[in-house]
Amino acid sequence: MQTDERNLCPIWMDEPSKKIKVIDQRRLPHTVAVIDLDTVDDVIRAIAEMVVRGAPLIGITGAWGVYLATVRTQQETCDDAALTAECRRNKAARPTAVNLAWAVDRMLSAVIARDRGAERIRAAAGEAAAITDAEAECCRKIGEHGLTLIERIALKKPGRTVNILTHCNAGWLATIAHGTATAPMYAAFDSGLDIHVWVDETRPLNQGARLTAWELGRHGIRHTVITDNAGGHLMQHGEVDLVIVGTDRTTHTGDVANKIGTYLKALAARDNGIPFYVALPSSTFDWTLTDGVRQIPIETRNPDEIRYVQGRRGSETLSVLVPPEDSPAGNYAFDVTPARLVTGFITERGICRANEADIRRLFPEKAVDRTATDSHR
Amino acid sequence: MQTDERNLCPIWMDEPSKKIKVIDQRRLPHTVAVIDLDTVDDVIRAIAEMVVRGAPLIGITGAWGVYLATVRTQQETCDDAALTAECRRNKAARPTAVNLAWAVDRMLSAVIARDRGAERIRAAAGEAAAITDAEAECCRKIGEHGLTLIERIALKKPGRTVNILTHCNAGWLATIAHGTATAPMYAAFDSGLDIHVWVDETRPLNQGARLTAWELGRHGIRHTVITDNAGGHLMQHGEVDLVIVGTDRTTHTGDVANKIGTYLKALAARDNGIPFYVALPSSTFDWTLTDGVRQIPIETRNPDEIRYVQGRRGSETLSVLVPPEDSPAGNYAFDVTPARLVTGFITERGICRANEADIRRLFPEKAVDRTATDSHR
Repeated sequence: MQTDERNLCPIWMDEPSKKIKVIDQRRLPHTVAVIDLDTVDDVIRAIAEMVVRGAPLIGITGAWGVYLATVRTQQETCDDAALTAECRRNKAARPTAVNLAWAVDRMLSAVIARDRGAERIRAAAGEAAAITDAEAECCRKIGEHGLTLIERIALKKPGRTVNILTHCNAGWLATIAHGTATAPMYAAFDSGLDIHVWVDETRPLNQGARLTAWELGRHGIRHTVITDNAGGHLMQHGEVDLVIVGTDRTTHTGDVANKIGTYLKALAARDNGIPFYVALPSSTFDWTLTDGVRQIPIETRNPDEIRYVQGRRGSETLSVLVPPEDSPAGNYAFDVTPARLVTGFITERGICRANEADIRRLFPEKAVDRTATDSHR
Repeated sequence: MQTDERNLCPIWMDEPSKKIKVIDQRRLPHTVAVIDLDTVDDVIRAIAEMVVRGAPLIGITGAWGVYLATVRTQQETCDDAALTAECRRNKAARPTAVNLAWAVDRMLSAVIARDRGAERIRAAAGEAAAITDAEAECCRKIGEHGLTLIERIALKKPGRTVNILTHCNAGWLATIAHGTATAPMYAAFDSGLDIHVWVDETRPLNQGARLTAWELGRHGIRHTVITDNAGGHLMQHGEVDLVIVGTDRTTHTGDVANKIGTYLKALAARDNGIPFYVALPSSTFDWTLTDGVRQIPIETRNPDEIRYVQGRRGSETLSVLVPPEDSPAGNYAFDVTPARLVTGFITERGICRANEADIRRLFPEKAVDRTATDSHR
């Protein structure tokens, strides 16, 4: 269902085996390998070890995890407590992306509303498929809305390339189709606009260099891989017209948690008068938190993700140690960009500015629960 | 003459062979290899390929390059034009660091003032040694002055660690002794202050992870390697008390060219009210340029420095390819931090604010030549 004839997709249910299959994103771009997820433990491991990553895809994978938990519990005890416990474990696989908790909670509500047994399994499969399809549709609409931003810039510089900078991978590999930050780029390219994308390599795991460059290249979109250090320099010299990034969790007040380093790009965009947009489906909004910098939990990961860099040598994929053996490293996975640095949000309902009033205007039905800390939407 | 009993130094004249020897910094930290520089071409290659790097060390190496050129020309033609041509080639090895042109010009003036032949060779050796010693002494004094900044912070948080962030390597490997940005750190540690250094890994060539971490570790200074993306997050959370970086060229109006990404750290420091200092010997000031962002030439280097990452695997040092084979990369080596983002300069004469008046007050004897574009001091 993806960007070329090979119909790649980051997660799918295989028919007729009913197995859940994912692309192992740790091995891209040099190897396209597929892994089976047979149990909730497989799902948790896949999320924690970043076989799958990206907030929307983590949510979708979590949904399929609840499906797997439902199959197991309904074939065994049909015990609600066991199912709930599996969901709790599933939700804790990674702390920052709010989509995971959102999708698992939605799945659990849909499943336990049904009669125990086969009915629940059918409901779980249906709901996970519905979440998957809805997220894909959100991304398609994000592309439509974001396209208008790029068209407006293109009109102002006729005959010249529109240069877009992005950080990390918020492409179809991070969602299910189209991507969030990449959706406007795919839409612009497909409509014939002349665009070029600066791809931050995105240390430590190089999701930009490995995944975004691979996605854009397969689609034929002109792009250049740069170090995470380079964006400010390019902005100072008029080489960036627009920044679009994804997000792992955005407060309803407009603070944006995203891959570590996003904040630095937002600062540079502000300093150079360049629009800085965040693309997200509404499942990534957190309707409970008001202060992103203080309240969003920031995951710290294994320091070896910094110390060792993985790449290809000949036909092998292997890792090399960069710093001295005995130098410690600190691996902070996300940072929070305050709303004041964000020009606007590109959502499935349209574009809004980064403040509570404008976000609420797009999503008036959302109840904001200022007391909740654990449940999301 | 360095930081431990093994007396390491990045460049020296071997006695009695009179050979110029350098540590091959491309192979650190996993291998300490020494290379002979026998000709001006060897010197140019060593500078261009970053066997040696860091503005002060590039200047010193250029000075020894003029010594080698003097030996050759005085043993052959004694032709002033040939010597001048060798100096011109030597100066062009890399474009951004102003120290190279400064050192070569100073050497040439000293040499051609003498009688042709042996007298000139003696003068060249003497002048190169004088430049080397003077740069080391500048760095020692930078350490003394910078120490006062760290002491002041330590007084404000008794019993707690002073956290300093640095970008790239402006250590003794980049100078000749003490370093520039690291000189205050060594001085603070040696005086018993409790410091910890956040070391930006500094993509693409990882001079932070490879060189700064190695230097600090050998000296016993507590440090943590982080991605270049992480500094803003740490500053938001009160984990950075002070930023100190080096520079490859600083205009007399206070604009700072330094390793790509420095500008992003300066923006984050400003956004979080954290002091951002630049440590430099006066040889790094450019007394001719007034607008760093527009006027300082920024070197672009081989994209493979981004695409391939070098590290150790087992007993081997090797490189791995990170992005897709056919994705292009853009390698901008430096950026310019405008004076408005710099709290102050730590020089051999003391600390000053980042504006023309304050810089001139420290260096009143410097003639500012607003018309010159090629000669430096």
